[in-house]
Amino acid sequence: MNTAAIYHRPSSEFAYLYEKDVLHLRLRTAKGDVSCVQLIWQDPYLIEKKQKTETKTMVKGLSTELFDYWFVSLKAPFHRLSYAFAITAVDQLEVFYGDQGLFPYSEELKQSANLYFRFPYFHEIDRFKAPSWVKETVWYQIFPERFANGDQSNDPASTLPWGSKTPDRQDFFGGDLQGIIDHLDYLEELGVNGLYLCPIFKAYSNHKYDTIDYRRIDPAFGDEKVFKRLVEKCHQKGIKVMLDAVFNHMGDQSPQWQDVLAKGKESKYADWFHIHEFPPSYKASEDFEEAYDMTYETFAFTPHMPKLNTANPEVQDYLLETAKYWIETFDIDAWRLDVANEVDHSFWKKFRQVCDESKKDFYILGEIWHSAQAWLSGDEFHGVMNYAYTDAIMDYFVKQKLTLKTMVATINQQLMLYRDQTNQMQFNILDSHDTPRLLTETKEDKDLMKQVLAFTYLQPGVPCLYYGDEIGMTGGMDPACRKCMIWEEKNQDQEVLQFVKELIALRKNWQNILSQGNLHWLVVNEQNGQLTLERSLDNHKLQAVFNTGSAEIIMEKTGEILLANREKENETNLCIQEKGFVLLKV
Amino acid sequence: MNTAAIYHRPSSEFAYLYEKDVLHLRLRTAKGDVSCVQLIWQDPYLIEKKQKTETKTMVKGLSTELFDYWFVSLKAPFHRLSYAFAITAVDQLEVFYGDQGLFPYSEELKQSANLYFRFPYFHEIDRFKAPSWVKETVWYQIFPERFANGDQSNDPASTLPWGSKTPDRQDFFGGDLQGIIDHLDYLEELGVNGLYLCPIFKAYSNHKYDTIDYRRIDPAFGDEKVFKRLVEKCHQKGIKVMLDAVFNHMGDQSPQWQDVLAKGKESKYADWFHIHEFPPSYKASEDFEEAYDMTYETFAFTPHMPKLNTANPEVQDYLLETAKYWIETFDIDAWRLDVANEVDHSFWKKFRQVCDESKKDFYILGEIWHSAQAWLSGDEFHGVMNYAYTDAIMDYFVKQKLTLKTMVATINQQLMLYRDQTNQMQFNILDSHDTPRLLTETKEDKDLMKQVLAFTYLQPGVPCLYYGDEIGMTGGMDPACRKCMIWEEKNQDQEVLQFVKELIALRKNWQNILSQGNLHWLVVNEQNGQLTLERSLDNHKLQAVFNTGSAEIIMEKTGEILLANREKENETNLCIQEKGFVLLKV
Repeated sequence: MNTAAIYHRPSSEFAYLYEKDVLHLRLRTAKGDVSCVQLIWQDPYLIEKKQKTETKTMVKGLSTELFDYWFVSLKAPFHRLSYAFAITAVDQLEVFYGDQGLFPYSEELKQSANLYFRFPYFHEIDRFKAPSWVKETVWYQIFPERFANGDQSNDPASTLPWGSKTPDRQDFFGGDLQGIIDHLDYLEELGVNGLYLCPIFKAYSNHKYDTIDYRRIDPAFGDEKVFKRLVEKCHQKGIKVMLDAVFNHMGDQSPQWQDVLAKGKESKYADWFHIHEFPPSYKASEDFEEAYDMTYETFAFTPHMPKLNTANPEVQDYLLETAKYWIETFDIDAWRLDVANEVDHSFWKKFRQVCDESKKDFYILGEIWHSAQAWLSGDEFHGVMNYAYTDAIMDYFVKQKLTLKTMVATINQQLMLYRDQTNQMQFNILDSHDTPRLLTETKEDKDLMKQVLAFTYLQPGVPCLYYGDEIGMTGGMDPACRKCMIWEEKNQDQEVLQFVKELIALRKNWQNILSQGNLHWLVVNEQNGQLTLERSLDNHKLQAVFNTGSAEIIMEKTGEILLANREKENETNLCIQEKGFVLLKV
Repeated sequence: MNTAAIYHRPSSEFAYLYEKDVLHLRLRTAKGDVSCVQLIWQDPYLIEKKQKTETKTMVKGLSTELFDYWFVSLKAPFHRLSYAFAITAVDQLEVFYGDQGLFPYSEELKQSANLYFRFPYFHEIDRFKAPSWVKETVWYQIFPERFANGDQSNDPASTLPWGSKTPDRQDFFGGDLQGIIDHLDYLEELGVNGLYLCPIFKAYSNHKYDTIDYRRIDPAFGDEKVFKRLVEKCHQKGIKVMLDAVFNHMGDQSPQWQDVLAKGKESKYADWFHIHEFPPSYKASEDFEEAYDMTYETFAFTPHMPKLNTANPEVQDYLLETAKYWIETFDIDAWRLDVANEVDHSFWKKFRQVCDESKKDFYILGEIWHSAQAWLSGDEFHGVMNYAYTDAIMDYFVKQKLTLKTMVATINQQLMLYRDQTNQMQFNILDSHDTPRLLTETKEDKDLMKQVLAFTYLQPGVPCLYYGDEIGMTGGMDPACRKCMIWEEKNQDQEVLQFVKELIALRKNWQNILSQGNLHWLVVNEQNGQLTLERSLDNHKLQAVFNTGSAEIIMEKTGEILLANREKENETNLCIQEKGFVLLKV
């Protein structure tokens, strides 16, 4: 047995309350190394009284390239738990694994109270709780400057005619909030029920990530009244609204930073930032966006985005009051947090408290590109932008940089980083205002686009559609991916649109199983490219077969077809062509 | 290479700020498996710009039975860090290990920004900060009912003559706070500079763990005035005061519980506890202390200690105000938290905030017997009762249940559970009011007692002496370990006392190196029982040699002797007899 591969960490994603009374436990072992794991458990005080321990068999769940993960859920009559693992290797070696490490298995060990891991008490207040509406949501991301121009009166002076060109970095086209309101029927018909708006607060650029005033709607986008109407109309249609909070840094056109520039150390905002030397200065590089020799800290190396000192109570108050203001006054449903990983945990814990107090079932989504356990313990965020997950999907299906097995292993590895209820809150995004569009990545192969969309919508975590993808819009790296939305039906790809509508409807119809169901990989065939996954919950099962190979796949028809592409069938058989897929209810 | 053994966890004890600008990183590999580890690092945004990465060699530190731990400290110029590990195995295989797992090493991988672990930003506010006075402290634990009777007027009716018998479970002997005040000179002369008092609040029993009123000094111990004088006099002598907070449960004689018993569901305290059925009831077992069929939750199975509902804001307010009251009104320096693991994290985070706001450099010590990373991230406790650590010491030196190598491995394993600054805050206690006394455990072997004390005082973490151990008091499992303190000098063991004084003085003189210094095991010789450890800090080094074998050990004299027992020397050589030790400044 590879004993050094065995891992469990108490009070983490390896041991957590899933529901009020239900504990989930995981154990990691070397891949293919272990034949059986028994959980040994008892109330801690009953072990001390030498009462017999209970056992429960663990199930082998997901696997990565190096590891197998074992799983068990259980209840404890007194809401306290001591637990350990009896692990039997394929080589028949048996070990006892607990809080003091590994020992050759013996019955006597089971009586030593201090050898057990502990889940000291089942505290509902400490449980990671997920707002239930999130898992029923299909998000739609809007870059407001490019979605629709509903009010010409607020257009910036330099506004270009709508869709007149592929955008350059500094262009304005006049998109605004009224434009979104005007097209809510379209969104409702599409079926999405969550709007994720890129920043809408007063800022200098077209992307608005360089905030000037967190409490004002950008005048080119409308005003507070329009925004209030937007939220109300969304809610009438059952659509949730998520705003983008850029709290890591501020724009250098903000009155706070301008005051620092004007008054230096004497500015009342001098401690709002991280300034090493007054007056704050930098040397510009050839690239407008970057600088060097900066005497203050910034987002990346962007001199126009000075980093906020979120350890300063004044800054905290300002930002927390801001968070509260948009929730309480406008009834928004979620905050998406830009560059969330570079802001301190202490601030986010306060932020979470403010949001929880301001609105029940509020959702907080952090932009974090790397492993994010530290932010997802239940007292900061509900989910993060799931890049590592969707990158693996893109890297296999579209970019062909991974083998099928590696994609599956990577997905499994990501799922094992977080609690099950956290995985259900993760934000699965295949493209955005920061990346080339999906259809461009697939080299305008619509079947491949449908396949990768379908695969993503069948994963745990909530899918997010980038505006315009549904009508076949294209565009490379930003700013090309930020083209103006196409509204003339004749220029919209109706075939793609129809498919996306069906996919969204399917996600919502089967949201329980697609969100909370177990994930099994039934076929991972590197040779013919067949990938079959199963989602199961209680007695319900969905199976999806993807043909990612170069020849057609013929298989028995085992259930009712819910959605398919490039598939032919007769009474007993299915034939799935290259880039095709079929989803069955079995 | 055993790739499955390799482990690192971002934002944990494997990656943390040690000082404001200094990051500590650890990596775990299979024991003896790896010959070299290079840390690869760079600013995250500079990797994206394809700037060359930096490298720094990691040092092999402590080892356990299965693992080696590698260590490096570093600064990052922009306070952001991407890092990965280049690991070379003894079999020459090289791997790149980062946030996406392990890859065969290649230079190209170093350019992939998303393969790196991240320490997104160095936030001082999130750093685990240790009150500096704690590592300069030698604690002295007092069981107040048995230390000294300074005021006969407050003795309980049933008080027995001081020291007249070995205590039974329900006996009272009249110990009180005035008794402690009367003997502060003794404590000062002994050299201890922290008093850890078992509970002193109004309660039913002699041990006072069944609190009746958290805001009153138990009348048999004195009153608030006496306690205030005690703290003042302690502070005059440079002695800190730590009180015991029993916040997991309350005594059943408390007015709150009595109100629930009287009024049932209608009691305004009905939601202060965890009651499944009204009226709360239980069936007594033959053992007075325990019960079954309880309709409410308790500490262990003790019907007289109903568990508090710390998720109830009223209970939170009550307990937090209590915590604040004793700090602000009486200027105490630390809280020791009874059964801390069974109270929710959410409460402890609030508790920490209240303590931090009430007094600078306040210390919080949790009673947790198992791995406690979840409580030691910097926003709950500073340290825990270090039972697993001191158990390993007792199990080798005294109980002979472990081999020498296993003791060392266990100690190392415990040190690798926590950040370095956390290890310096851990509370090392060899015996207490809940265990047999050290001298009884050593079967009254004073040399062995001296050896185990010396070994413990040379460890990271702060030592705590149980009242009376220093004068050779004996006593088995409680209540026998709670005998009355012996004050007649002729009945005190002066030899032990003299040794303990020297040991305490040594600990305080060398506190920097003993607290913060690196720990190296120079000799771990199972055959002859020689154990040599080194503590080093900057250019200072202490070495200690313990003879745990059955024959004398002769060795070269390499430095100045600071403390020794059962040791003989000439100009060049040292001879250490069985159960002897020598501590050298080298």
